[in-house]
Amino acid sequence: MSGKKLDKKPEARLPKGMRDVEAEEIRAMQRMLGTIRQVYESYGFEPLDTPAFEYTDALGKFLPDQDRPNEGVFSFQDEDEQWLSLRYDLTAPLARYVAQNFDRLPKPFRRYQTGPVWRNEKPGPGRFRQFTQFDADTVGTDSVAADAELCMLAADTMEALGVQTGDYVIKVNNRKVLDGLRESIGLGGPENDNRWLIAMRAIDKLDRLGFEGVEALLGNERRDESGDVTKGAGLEPEQVRRVISCIRSSKSAVGETIGLPSQAQIHKYFKQPKMMGDSEPYDHWIQVDNAGTLDRLRKEVQDSPLACEGIDELARIAALCENTGFGGGQILVEPSLVRGLEYYTGPVIEAEVTLNAFNDDGVPVRFGSVGGGGRYDGLVSRFTGARIPATGFSIGVSRLYAALQALGQLKTETASGPVVVLVMDRDRIADFQNLANRLRKPTDGGKPIRAEMYLGTSGMKAQMKYADRRGAPCVVIQGGDELERGEVTIKDLIEGERLSGAISGNQAWREGRPAQFAVKEGELVEAVRSVLARHQTK
Amino acid sequence: MSGKKLDKKPEARLPKGMRDVEAEEIRAMQRMLGTIRQVYESYGFEPLDTPAFEYTDALGKFLPDQDRPNEGVFSFQDEDEQWLSLRYDLTAPLARYVAQNFDRLPKPFRRYQTGPVWRNEKPGPGRFRQFTQFDADTVGTDSVAADAELCMLAADTMEALGVQTGDYVIKVNNRKVLDGLRESIGLGGPENDNRWLIAMRAIDKLDRLGFEGVEALLGNERRDESGDVTKGAGLEPEQVRRVISCIRSSKSAVGETIGLPSQAQIHKYFKQPKMMGDSEPYDHWIQVDNAGTLDRLRKEVQDSPLACEGIDELARIAALCENTGFGGGQILVEPSLVRGLEYYTGPVIEAEVTLNAFNDDGVPVRFGSVGGGGRYDGLVSRFTGARIPATGFSIGVSRLYAALQALGQLKTETASGPVVVLVMDRDRIADFQNLANRLRKPTDGGKPIRAEMYLGTSGMKAQMKYADRRGAPCVVIQGGDELERGEVTIKDLIEGERLSGAISGNQAWREGRPAQFAVKEGELVEAVRSVLARHQTK
Repeated sequence: MSGKKLDKKPEARLPKGMRDVEAEEIRAMQRMLGTIRQVYESYGFEPLDTPAFEYTDALGKFLPDQDRPNEGVFSFQDEDEQWLSLRYDLTAPLARYVAQNFDRLPKPFRRYQTGPVWRNEKPGPGRFRQFTQFDADTVGTDSVAADAELCMLAADTMEALGVQTGDYVIKVNNRKVLDGLRESIGLGGPENDNRWLIAMRAIDKLDRLGFEGVEALLGNERRDESGDVTKGAGLEPEQVRRVISCIRSSKSAVGETIGLPSQAQIHKYFKQPKMMGDSEPYDHWIQVDNAGTLDRLRKEVQDSPLACEGIDELARIAALCENTGFGGGQILVEPSLVRGLEYYTGPVIEAEVTLNAFNDDGVPVRFGSVGGGGRYDGLVSRFTGARIPATGFSIGVSRLYAALQALGQLKTETASGPVVVLVMDRDRIADFQNLANRLRKPTDGGKPIRAEMYLGTSGMKAQMKYADRRGAPCVVIQGGDELERGEVTIKDLIEGERLSGAISGNQAWREGRPAQFAVKEGELVEAVRSVLARHQTK
Repeated sequence: MSGKKLDKKPEARLPKGMRDVEAEEIRAMQRMLGTIRQVYESYGFEPLDTPAFEYTDALGKFLPDQDRPNEGVFSFQDEDEQWLSLRYDLTAPLARYVAQNFDRLPKPFRRYQTGPVWRNEKPGPGRFRQFTQFDADTVGTDSVAADAELCMLAADTMEALGVQTGDYVIKVNNRKVLDGLRESIGLGGPENDNRWLIAMRAIDKLDRLGFEGVEALLGNERRDESGDVTKGAGLEPEQVRRVISCIRSSKSAVGETIGLPSQAQIHKYFKQPKMMGDSEPYDHWIQVDNAGTLDRLRKEVQDSPLACEGIDELARIAALCENTGFGGGQILVEPSLVRGLEYYTGPVIEAEVTLNAFNDDGVPVRFGSVGGGGRYDGLVSRFTGARIPATGFSIGVSRLYAALQALGQLKTETASGPVVVLVMDRDRIADFQNLANRLRKPTDGGKPIRAEMYLGTSGMKAQMKYADRRGAPCVVIQGGDELERGEVTIKDLIEGERLSGAISGNQAWREGRPAQFAVKEGELVEAVRSVLARHQTK
């Protein structure tokens, strides 16, 4: 039964765009996911899990990148030659689930789901082919209260994670306004689909290009700093003017710009993030006036019933949020918000971390979007034909994690490693195993202590090094001398390391043996607990 | 941007062998995984996550079913035409990870991992193509203490999950004993590979076929009750006798069989599960004598140095476990244990739930294996060439979940649904939203209460039905009358349902309005808390 085909060894390598996640990140991630779960649960959403892959036709193709309609997903065939695809988001599987189980579900149906999704896209720095999303959706209602609620959920999630008002903003716009604007400037009809798509993509890049760049791309072409030319949408100057005027309407602020709002003002101010080519300075707060934004917007598109409907919805969303205590500094009507996915039909939402972080070279880094969503009234009807309106919000967990890390909101545990029982004599491993077992299962019913006996075959020095690398708070030693006296020695590694910096001279160190003490074997658990307690509070 | 290609609707269906998991199971599963995590952590293992798929060559082919070497996994190609496969277990990705990161890892390297794995196998009742495993592995040590530790870990996990001693058993055997036996009866050499494979598969089916059936399959053929004939391994009668004698050695018990051991005896007794064709009765306990089993075994294979080495290892494992307080009723030396996977090289382990459950027709159901593992010294060397010994244990989470469910060890929460705020007047949704918000974020800093405003468009009756289906503990009502008085009405749905059984007559019910009371709006949170507290203790 042994193989002899091992001539050519495979290379141990991760697939392109994939990564391993190690202990510290897993623990911090778990805490973060736990917090998000608590907020989602508090809003009444129930958990759901769907499988990693679906039939390709059931999943549909709703990925933002229209240039590669046949790519973006990982697909394979089953034995019946039916195509399967790894899910690229959690919304398409939800639509399948709702269509399949519609009759027995409470309506509206409200679920949250978290898990990995996969995209067959070009990986890059911070861009992986497997990443985690955390979604909440309400299916089966037209009410904009459901959209407003998602804005509040997003804001509450940020706050629960320790991102303070001003360091994030939940932007909300309405697809109906953009669609209405399109009609209003005479770009309706399928013959204009492509020009409008280019225009939408240009607006989507506002953060990166600034208004000047977008203006150029709405027109004939944009020339960047290097002289490279990108072809634009080719809109007439008056069309360009009206689009820019619309997407500027939150910026042409009546509100004052100030250095730092007081605690009482803060939820009415929005911390303006840096934009390329933007003349507005850093770290300035703009007083938000959602009602003013909507007034300016309405003047631009009042000839379009669709746009006006969208503006009415936005006004109701903003009012509901304000009524519940969320100011415009938290939930901001932002007419320039596009969000790529084609399937949105009404309000769209984006959660953005606005703080300025700095990379290793001191260059400011924008976190940008850490989540988004909106209303998609057509996704379930793909299956059933019946119109089932729905709205959802999805957190990009890895992006949010990176932002929280930069914000210093990810507590890491000190002394999270196990207590290591050293093996002083290989004939006595049963005794050492027993010491570890006593720590794991204290007979007084106390909390288990993470502990292990050293399982390798190396000597004392390597064992100590091992304990260090495992992040052990202390080691337990029972050599021949200790055994005779019925004792164990406990060596506090964290305290020891601290002291080793303070004591000069190897000899003084050895003689003093600081941070090390002996106790009777029966007092092992108590003694280790006292060491752990020392480091818990730090 | 709107699609017009929706003529043919896709069918909303789950891929074959896949399932959706809903709220109640997700919550129970989370608690179960949390308990397992605590035990694994207490043993000093650290978490690791690897991606869902790996390069096919890095994953290798270690699936048990040798008949279909090219099947069993889901594979696809990336844009560079390299083959990728969804992981079929968590061990192969671990081997890749260790080989890739060997230099910087502490040695031994100890990690746990949980997550879904995928197998492209024929689905059946309770057999899915995606299922969850929970693994712990120690990589980089030859010490049998590491194997013994996994036996203890498995037993502690069972106990922590509420499976009592006697309702589970951790079986341990050694591949070296079986390999030594093979040599000893003259079946060494590649020309006997196929016969030995058939023999091993027969032994693997002992639980189902009984000793008689296995004996027949070791010989020329087995005829089952229906008269169907299965070809056997074709061993000589003396060879068959010796194999049977070996795999019987735990059963030819010196130990007495009794009805029910006392609490003090229990960890030394093993609750014999039912076996097809087995004359031993149900629910009888056999006193376990691991040392006796090993003595009998040694007599059979004493001419094989390899088998003797295996027996010595088993003796040390049994001694280490006993020394740490685990009796043979918990950790049982079982020479008939095979475990299919080809890559094991030493001790093999299996966790079995031995309780008798009964299906809906009153027929006893065996849960059998809920986890297993063993030593695999060749898996990392596939990549590096260097021998890196390793040992691991893996829980089949879904199987264990099913067993715990039958054992009644999965607590379900009463009143886990959200409090539903009814919408009495659509013009006042801002007010109702506010009531829900107050419950979610109590201003006194108390625990958030799960709450939602009804988001649909239906009337009172449908709203009450919705609250019922959501499992709401109570609803909050504020109609015109209540508003005038500055009050809200709270209706206890759980108490209400209980009372509705007791009160006869619709009229009496309506007039009495039991389980319903009004409070001042400012006392909303307190009042809802009092309702929740009522049901918490039940």
